[in-house]
Amino acid sequence: MRIALAADHAGYVLKDELAAWLRESGHEVTDLGTNSPDSVDYPAFGSRLAETIASGSAHRGVVVCGSGIGISIAVNRNPACRCALVNEPLSAALAREHNDANVLALGARLTGPDLAKACIAAFLDTDFAGGRHQRRVDMLSPQLQDSD
Amino acid sequence: MRIALAADHAGYVLKDELAAWLRESGHEVTDLGTNSPDSVDYPAFGSRLAETIASGSAHRGVVVCGSGIGISIAVNRNPACRCALVNEPLSAALAREHNDANVLALGARLTGPDLAKACIAAFLDTDFAGGRHQRRVDMLSPQLQDSD
Repeated sequence: MRIALAADHAGYVLKDELAAWLRESGHEVTDLGTNSPDSVDYPAFGSRLAETIASGSAHRGVVVCGSGIGISIAVNRNPACRCALVNEPLSAALAREHNDANVLALGARLTGPDLAKACIAAFLDTDFAGGRHQRRVDMLSPQLQDSD
Repeated sequence: MRIALAADHAGYVLKDELAAWLRESGHEVTDLGTNSPDSVDYPAFGSRLAETIASGSAHRGVVVCGSGIGISIAVNRNPACRCALVNEPLSAALAREHNDANVLALGARLTGPDLAKACIAAFLDTDFAGGRHQRRVDMLSPQLQDSD
């Protein structure tokens, strides 16, 4: 599964550790940056990740900023994305099971690397339940339903 | 400050407790439902809350579903909203300070009522820091900047 990652300056160290771990786990990883501590704007990196999902260039995304809040908002502006901000694995699993989430947001200042990996593992290992949840997922992006 | 609340069937009990507490605290509260355990679709209630913020009918919003994930995605589809999914007060404060969040999302199955109230208190008591954060907030809703 191809996984894209993006982060701002507050999140890039965690993002880099997660990217290395995902590669070691056998996933194809696309690193969209940032790759230094120089200050950048999280909306630009969230938007870039969202476009990568929307284009089909990646199947899943992981975004990281200081709290995870700003970059999760940025990703959810794109109707192709359902981004879940989480800090523990149960939420990450529920995001897949109920919301068919395709992007996970993490806060590097709040969630440590091992817990972040546990969140991603739950996110990647859990299937969407479908059924009544599919109708609700479709309602999140009516413009995409109309164009089908 | 006028605060609007909305929830699905998994969140309405917590939403009702939070609404009563906010009224007792002196806030004007608009309850957008749901108001029963009958199954409803969280995107409809998230969208309704978002439109209430976008119209200026409320200054702040609180949305609740089972995990908080689905309804937070729904709210963030509206460019007038910056919705932060949180489960502890530090994130709620950071959402205001850095992201000028105007809506807080909570997961009723994951966050108990007293912790939810502590999150809302931090959300209502923390000011936006402005400065470089304003540029980033503007980038989250470019269509609103163009129309100013």
